[in-house]
Amino acid sequence: MDGGFTHVDENGNARMVDVGGKSPSRRTAVASGLISMSAECFAMVAEGRAKKGDVLGVAQVAGIMATKRTGDLIPLCHPLCLTKSAVEFVLRPGESRIEARCTVECEGKTGVEMEALTGAAAALLTIYDMCKAADRRMVISELRLLEKRGGKSGEFRFEAGADD
Amino acid sequence: MDGGFTHVDENGNARMVDVGGKSPSRRTAVASGLISMSAECFAMVAEGRAKKGDVLGVAQVAGIMATKRTGDLIPLCHPLCLTKSAVEFVLRPGESRIEARCTVECEGKTGVEMEALTGAAAALLTIYDMCKAADRRMVISELRLLEKRGGKSGEFRFEAGADD
Amino acid sequence: MDGGFTHVDENGNARMVDVGGKSPSRRTAVASGLISMSAECFAMVAEGRAKKGDVLGVAQVAGIMATKRTGDLIPLCHPLCLTKSAVEFVLRPGESRIEARCTVECEGKTGVEMEALTGAAAALLTIYDMCKAADRRMVISELRLLEKRGGKSGEFRFEAGADD
Amino acid sequence: MDGGFTHVDENGNARMVDVGGKSPSRRTAVASGLISMSAECFAMVAEGRAKKGDVLGVAQVAGIMATKRTGDLIPLCHPLCLTKSAVEFVLRPGESRIEARCTVECEGKTGVEMEALTGAAAALLTIYDMCKAADRRMVISELRLLEKRGGKSGEFRFEAGADD
Amino acid sequence: MDGGFTHVDENGNARMVDVGGKSPSRRTAVASGLISMSAECFAMVAEGRAKKGDVLGVAQVAGIMATKRTGDLIPLCHPLCLTKSAVEFVLRPGESRIEARCTVECEGKTGVEMEALTGAAAALLTIYDMCKAADRRMVISELRLLEKRGGKSGEFRFEAGADD
Amino acid sequence: MDGGFTHVDENGNARMVDVGGKSPSRRTAVASGLISMSAECFAMVAEGRAKKGDVLGVAQVAGIMATKRTGDLIPLCHPLCLTKSAVEFVLRPGESRIEARCTVECEGKTGVEMEALTGAAAALLTIYDMCKAADRRMVISELRLLEKRGGKSGEFRFEAGADD
Repeated sequence: MDGGFTHVDENGNARMVDVGGKSPSRRTAVASGLISMSAECFAMVAEGRAKKGDVLGVAQVAGIMATKRTGDLIPLCHPLCLTKSAVEFVLRPGESRIEARCTVECEGKTGVEMEALTGAAAALLTIYDMCKAADRRMVISELRLLEKRGGKSGEFRFEAGADD
Repeated sequence: MDGGFTHVDENGNARMVDVGGKSPSRRTAVASGLISMSAECFAMVAEGRAKKGDVLGVAQVAGIMATKRTGDLIPLCHPLCLTKSAVEFVLRPGESRIEARCTVECEGKTGVEMEALTGAAAALLTIYDMCKAADRRMVISELRLLEKRGGKSGEFRFEAGADD
Repeated sequence: MDGGFTHVDENGNARMVDVGGKSPSRRTAVASGLISMSAECFAMVAEGRAKKGDVLGVAQVAGIMATKRTGDLIPLCHPLCLTKSAVEFVLRPGESRIEARCTVECEGKTGVEMEALTGAAAALLTIYDMCKAADRRMVISELRLLEKRGGKSGEFRFEAGADD
Repeated sequence: MDGGFTHVDENGNARMVDVGGKSPSRRTAVASGLISMSAECFAMVAEGRAKKGDVLGVAQVAGIMATKRTGDLIPLCHPLCLTKSAVEFVLRPGESRIEARCTVECEGKTGVEMEALTGAAAALLTIYDMCKAADRRMVISELRLLEKRGGKSGEFRFEAGADD
Repeated sequence: MDGGFTHVDENGNARMVDVGGKSPSRRTAVASGLISMSAECFAMVAEGRAKKGDVLGVAQVAGIMATKRTGDLIPLCHPLCLTKSAVEFVLRPGESRIEARCTVECEGKTGVEMEALTGAAAALLTIYDMCKAADRRMVISELRLLEKRGGKSGEFRFEAGADD
Repeated sequence: MDGGFTHVDENGNARMVDVGGKSPSRRTAVASGLISMSAECFAMVAEGRAKKGDVLGVAQVAGIMATKRTGDLIPLCHPLCLTKSAVEFVLRPGESRIEARCTVECEGKTGVEMEALTGAAAALLTIYDMCKAADRRMVISELRLLEKRGGKSGEFRFEAGADD
């Protein structure tokens, strides 16, 4: 653990932290999450992808658009001008799960972790929305930051043993 | 499993499904999700709650506001005039996890599952944002629909054995 | 004073209050506010109005659009489908002040006070924005609810002696 | 021609017209528009559709989402809770043009013409965005209301000789 | 024709293209479009302009505001901090048509074509909205990029014979 | 008074002024405003603050989020990537008034006065919303720019005798 709550000042007030003194650098973040569903539902999405790509195509657009709206949703996030945003899916047929992976880049003074996490979350929620008539017991899990580069704290990889 | 992909028409096109023929009724949905964190980070949030409520207070506002923006984020969701929206947290000290539970109500022609799920997701993402300086390995999981009432398909409870 | 804090539940949590049990009725609210400025600045706006209406024309559009965004700005406001929204200005040359008056209507279960107040505020802030190169000491004041009709609590007029 | 400028009051002020006295009914509107491009660019989109549907798939989502944002973009439009929104494309290979057709429905007190037109416009602009690296001379044209049903003024069809 | 579909990667996935490696420069784009209407309707707008400027005044504000929202509407557009945005109208009485021309500037890594096109489109749609009670057969056409400066691809003028 | 209406060009058209030629610098602005209420209502807020911070906590989040939305609300404001945003409250028990003070920073080509004013306004409106069941006669006043640093025009302090 490397610090305290930077969003909370000495009086307990929430604030968007001052990054004016930081120097701009290229920032990258990758986040991912999973949605599990019934085997029948999974098959329908998978076939849809083979034939028309619909559910995942819409979820991809939703994820990308959400990365741009992150500052509107997460109260203390800095508004950012992203230079790249992409969402990819990995189908895991054996477990009837779909992984959404979101990669975001920016040149700026703050990291883009929240943008990547928000993009992955929106993509997974959109899959839920488009499949819920077939399965209401889908569950979203393992939503987390996979990696992060740039900025003072340097590189982070979730899988690595030690932080930074 | 009770149906097909209502968002996809016979030609594979995405569309916002026609609910004009449905009759309006009171709809309720409850969704929840968990965020797990290090014991140190959890203690900071828990103490913050005792003293000033800050992290969870901001996350609560973020979750409520997100329920109102659901139609902007999830491409094929109908825009709705919600009549109630609330977010609550349950601290689970033993496992260093926080549960966010979002309840949404509306009188209309479509369910409010997506609003409840989006609210819970935004609340959990906001906790991540406010604590990420202390712990970047937090993980969001078990984001799912707990229950749903109203509409033609009747009552749904995640825990129940059979659907509906 | 006629009540407690309906946005705060018994545990101190913020929530968007449940209006599902209320019956819908026609709701009207009128709010107003003032902006005071230097005599030179006021003259420029007034002449602009006579000739091209520009500052006040833009402020009028800003106020109307803001009434529609109220639920996005005020965390615990219910999203509403307004049936009317209008902003008018009254020039008060003797005191170099401009009054913005915003009238909003809706058929629904909650009042539209916040929409009217937000519309008046946005109109006044837009006047500030468009005139600030000429005068940075403008002050917005007397922003308040003038009147309100509809709903269980009945009619309210700011000027009346007793509430409701 | 059947009326005056309902958005402008007797003093020339813009306002969102009062529809509180209208009775709600089911409203439908269909709008369409065309984008013309080079033959090479058209072939790329058409093949993309056959194989992966990408350009048109993204444009379809953009059009649907824009119908929900119409009240945010068109200053005097009433905010509405749409009950249906769909965008379809017709490829016209002989003329290297793509037609976007947007259908919107709502039960309410105002028509949904602007939602349908805004959806078609956003879909066409998205095609422009995704193809502009291949052709910057694309032109959007014939954006118009094809038909409209519901409301006091009854049915309208662009192709019909007389209005209503 | 100078390229392929930069929004589509090798697997057919949509993505917001990576512009992190581009160097920032001043970017300008001008777009225009036309709306044609009945002679009676055109006369009402034209007189309105002479007297109070209302329809075109509101449409101008709508166009400027839309240039700022482009990244929210067009899925793969980069969010940008515009440094200039303006909308002008040219009345063409002989043909009962109004031209909207939108000029946008930015210092950044991507062009501002979409912002200019979106601004012109929103201005024309707003004219439609404000005049539709008088004429539902208005048609928007010739919406296109007039010119573009800045960036690696250099200057573009629609009227020029060869691209760039 | 130091200038004319920079938002209005020589023909009276509104436009977002061109700041492309300005050099970027660190900009700071502080704005404040007051809300007055009944003594009973003030006591409830004050006690709430002592115990759970609810009303002011929500208002603080609303104010910070509104600073990020300023370009969406004020038509001719440039969209900006803020580097800091904070809202603080000062309780004035003797006069039953609460002061909201909003501080905003940015590195850019335009000032952030409007962001600070919009943030203070949104915080005060949120207090109104959360207390209106207890007191509908609250009044917002003295909303103004307290100070401003950075940019060509240098430092401004409301209290100082001379401008700049």
